[in-house]
Amino acid sequence: MSDVIIMEVENLDPIFKPKTMAVIGVSTTNPLFPGTIIYNKNLHEYPVKVFAVNAKGGSLEGNPIYKTITEVPAKVDLAVLVIKAKYVPEELKKCGEAGVKSCIVVSGGFAEVGHSCLEEELIKISKEYSLPFMGPNCIGIHTDFVDTFILPSERLATPPSGNVAVVSQSGGVLIDQILSKFYERQIGVAAAASIGNKAIINEITLLKYFNKHPQVSTIVFYNEGFKANSGQEFVQLAGSLNKDIILLKGGKSKFGAKAAQSHTAAIATNFSLISSSFRQAGIIEAVTEVELVTFTKAISFGLKGTENGNIVILSISGGHAVLAADLCAYYKLNLVQLTDDQKNLLRANVNPSIVDIASFENPIDLTGSVSDEDIEKCLELLLSFDSVEGVVVLLVPYVPTITMQIGRRLSNIVRNNKIKKPVVAYLPWLEIYGIIIRGLELAKSIPVAHTVEEAIQMIHALHLKGLKNKHR
Amino acid sequence: MSDVIIMEVENLDPIFKPKTMAVIGVSTTNPLFPGTIIYNKNLHEYPVKVFAVNAKGGSLEGNPIYKTITEVPAKVDLAVLVIKAKYVPEELKKCGEAGVKSCIVVSGGFAEVGHSCLEEELIKISKEYSLPFMGPNCIGIHTDFVDTFILPSERLATPPSGNVAVVSQSGGVLIDQILSKFYERQIGVAAAASIGNKAIINEITLLKYFNKHPQVSTIVFYNEGFKANSGQEFVQLAGSLNKDIILLKGGKSKFGAKAAQSHTAAIATNFSLISSSFRQAGIIEAVTEVELVTFTKAISFGLKGTENGNIVILSISGGHAVLAADLCAYYKLNLVQLTDDQKNLLRANVNPSIVDIASFENPIDLTGSVSDEDIEKCLELLLSFDSVEGVVVLLVPYVPTITMQIGRRLSNIVRNNKIKKPVVAYLPWLEIYGIIIRGLELAKSIPVAHTVEEAIQMIHALHLKGLKNKHR
Repeated sequence: MSDVIIMEVENLDPIFKPKTMAVIGVSTTNPLFPGTIIYNKNLHEYPVKVFAVNAKGGSLEGNPIYKTITEVPAKVDLAVLVIKAKYVPEELKKCGEAGVKSCIVVSGGFAEVGHSCLEEELIKISKEYSLPFMGPNCIGIHTDFVDTFILPSERLATPPSGNVAVVSQSGGVLIDQILSKFYERQIGVAAAASIGNKAIINEITLLKYFNKHPQVSTIVFYNEGFKANSGQEFVQLAGSLNKDIILLKGGKSKFGAKAAQSHTAAIATNFSLISSSFRQAGIIEAVTEVELVTFTKAISFGLKGTENGNIVILSISGGHAVLAADLCAYYKLNLVQLTDDQKNLLRANVNPSIVDIASFENPIDLTGSVSDEDIEKCLELLLSFDSVEGVVVLLVPYVPTITMQIGRRLSNIVRNNKIKKPVVAYLPWLEIYGIIIRGLELAKSIPVAHTVEEAIQMIHALHLKGLKNKHR
Repeated sequence: MSDVIIMEVENLDPIFKPKTMAVIGVSTTNPLFPGTIIYNKNLHEYPVKVFAVNAKGGSLEGNPIYKTITEVPAKVDLAVLVIKAKYVPEELKKCGEAGVKSCIVVSGGFAEVGHSCLEEELIKISKEYSLPFMGPNCIGIHTDFVDTFILPSERLATPPSGNVAVVSQSGGVLIDQILSKFYERQIGVAAAASIGNKAIINEITLLKYFNKHPQVSTIVFYNEGFKANSGQEFVQLAGSLNKDIILLKGGKSKFGAKAAQSHTAAIATNFSLISSSFRQAGIIEAVTEVELVTFTKAISFGLKGTENGNIVILSISGGHAVLAADLCAYYKLNLVQLTDDQKNLLRANVNPSIVDIASFENPIDLTGSVSDEDIEKCLELLLSFDSVEGVVVLLVPYVPTITMQIGRRLSNIVRNNKIKKPVVAYLPWLEIYGIIIRGLELAKSIPVAHTVEEAIQMIHALHLKGLKNKHR
């Protein structure tokens, strides 16, 4: 029976791209009631046609409130249930009877507080009607077409549309640690889902769905624990797919595992074992929330992985070069040793005033007397060296000899580079340098990090990606 | 002879708070010439009276250019030398003869490129005239009274005035990794100095000076290596002072040490030994550039250290609680086990709707159904528990039941708390929540971090500070 529903839920378009939607549980008196928030934001901000449902009837925003889902005068792709837990089974059943194609159960009060029987009831109904649902105990989803997050739009930061799909076991982490940070760093999102107790739709269902999703190239997971056996299945499936998968696991430490158990009843596991199976399957594992963001930025740019992590640091500040070199050691990246010929070639191509003060050992320090052209020439040459798989440019743009066009100039070099070696950049996050950031990131040529640590994390992510290709 | 000059340089007010200043080396034709930049920015933006010097004479910004320092019609507190290396000894000597009180030698081309004899000459002149100087090969200083950075003001981000002094061996790191990030996080600075080759004025000189500086409570160092024996002297001195000292050491790894050697001729050392001597002296060592910033923010708020690192995490998102708990394990902080009585007291003081869904184990998760008052009450109670030394509040403010006054409300509690236990907070860095950030940070009550990792780094810094008191 389980197989039947798994087969059915593989196409989840009615959830992620609904044309019609019903919100079951709205309030006519409290504008901050979750169901009302969901109804209003979809009515005014999204293309989906939305219907309000409440047994009391009445009207909301000038539209009728239907007393039951069966009264809604349209075929409903997605019903969102925002009612007390004890009423959910009955309403879910009605959805099944009314031919609703999919549901999101926002309501909490199920397995997460020990009411497993109530959750079992939902699973039974779902299977009976072949009605896939997300949740319970989740904050739902966000795409270009629909947003079921129970939070007011003006409180949220929404990232731009893009090629990343996000699946999170925690609604708070999804909204805040992922979507707000993606907004800050302008990482584009195709779909974001909070899966809550994942009674029916889980990581595996969504991995299959997003694997076939034409807009999605990178799939990001926040996970606190898999249900019995599904961890292994997830890893096997991930290993067989060609899309990039990034995962942050919460609850790895003793403290964290205990916290995860109260949060999502996640079972403590031997983490180093899991970690190595992730790596074998080509899953790019982020160790911290910050890594999750920087990894996603670099990977979502579609850059080539570096199989051996052989990189060059190109800096214009000696101190930055030192800090970056320390971080490369930490991340087990290899600072390629340049040959004398290569160093002489670099020297011959920069302006004479820096030849004696610059250091052409890797990390390269062109010093603050550098010009745009020096950086350009060096980057172009470095990308042409066989031994170099990728370059990290540390751009410290305060010196007036670096112009605001440096971003475009470096982006042009990367876009004209036939071998498509990855380049990532560090640039301080100051408003005045926005034009350089936009230049660098033009057509997804060079992802920009705003700490040296994040820049090295980015090139580390591309090494983790490269390892996957190497092991195949 | 060395002792004489060291005695003399202890009062460096003429450098950091000059009333009169001369810039030796300005251009009348190139507005981006470093000396001209320094002259113009001080003329228009700082209270110091500034004079231009160039052998050719002429005028700049309508003011005369003096042909030599001896012609300047005032007693000069600070002369900044921005001329070719080979001319520096002669001009430095003239400064000594003219009774100039202090110098900054911006010019490069000395020991850092192998010209040690030229640097020795400067040291000899300095001692002969009891004329302390900073540099050579540095970008100088910034205070409320003067700014000798060779970079145009419009390219820089300047942090607010405050109680932190910064001493950096790298100008690039000072400008970018420290001052720009301090601007971002609004960390107040009293003085910032780039010491370059530190021929005369070095970390020890400045440690002594800032120790007596009434405005300074926290002294921050970026260091790539100490000169022979001075590392030991620095550590001993640091251990005897009562001000908070934070240090980031670049060049710790094999790669980094090599880079530091090309950058500042720093000598590779056994880092784990240094690290433990730092800790014994109560120096708070940051391991990364990000830690340097978060540590400084927490420490500069003047919060009490936690001797045993016994803390509580107070979250309103289960996922955030899990991530924070993992980080506490990493940073060896102890999540205090709350007693049943304590948990019951917390339960009895929150609104009934969250009692059954919240978790009162540490990390505490009050869930998204929380109100301002719940957080307030819990924080107040936690601070009253003897076993709790500090609290990390993870504020995920998207739910509409949390108001924009939550910052002020929590700040009030901390400011009314007699035991002065430290509280740090996480809040996303979104414009809409600026009012909450300002509320929390009111009167330096609760420093705010913008990643969970940084929040835990802050409480970790306060533990490192507490260890110093414990070991005394």
